[in-house]
Amino acid sequence: MSDCVFCKIIKGEIPSTGIYEDEVVKVFLNINPASRGHLLVIPKEHFKNVLDCPDEILSHIIKISKKIAKLAKEKLGADAINIANNSGKEAGQEVFHLHFHVVPRYKGDGMRLDFISKKDLKDDLEEIKKIIIS
Amino acid sequence: MSDCVFCKIIKGEIPSTGIYEDEVVKVFLNINPASRGHLLVIPKEHFKNVLDCPDEILSHIIKISKKIAKLAKEKLGADAINIANNSGKEAGQEVFHLHFHVVPRYKGDGMRLDFISKKDLKDDLEEIKKIIIS
Repeated sequence: MSDCVFCKIIKGEIPSTGIYEDEVVKVFLNINPASRGHLLVIPKEHFKNVLDCPDEILSHIIKISKKIAKLAKEKLGADAINIANNSGKEAGQEVFHLHFHVVPRYKGDGMRLDFISKKDLKDDLEEIKKIIIS
Repeated sequence: MSDCVFCKIIKGEIPSTGIYEDEVVKVFLNINPASRGHLLVIPKEHFKNVLDCPDEILSHIIKISKKIAKLAKEKLGADAINIANNSGKEAGQEVFHLHFHVVPRYKGDGMRLDFISKKDLKDDLEEIKKIIIS
């Protein structure tokens, strides 16, 4: 898409700090890193998010995310890794070209990304199941 | 693994609210939901996290996560979806059996899961690239 920042990065019209590239994906350092070595894995073809991305491309993205996660963990001495995708504005998506975050984590880095339990939602699980599988 | 909560869920030794199951994965509602319809996608075979999971199983997990995300979004009327994996204690992993979170998001739900940029990390990108690809 002509007005998409990530499409422009793929075309080289906007510079990026690339780490890996193949026919399907590009991996580069996030210009707005949340941690040291915060990477983005994106498909070269434009998809809005996970929901409109074909399975075979999604499979490739997750394989490369794992590979890059291992590399970043080893080389940067990270203790752990978050792999995350935000699909939709209300999920925190800001650039509407599918991207997976690969975020190296370090002991005591103070980030809080895990999902906080809301106790008032607990009792409703059977009801929610019925709605989902209906 | 005999002392793994998720292995026990797979064996039916601990109850869960299952949504989907096939030969490779099981999907169930998180007993500690962060949002309405918060799901976990786990492989039946025990892997600690993404880093030790074979590519073909990881591919299947992400395909099912997408399928389940679509279903949850449609059926629960969610506005967006987070798909996320925490690999390692320092990344927020609490159960050490690989799991992908599929978290339906709703406008105004007040969750803050996106990655907060740390401006002091910005200038270091070329240096970090060198370390990663060395």
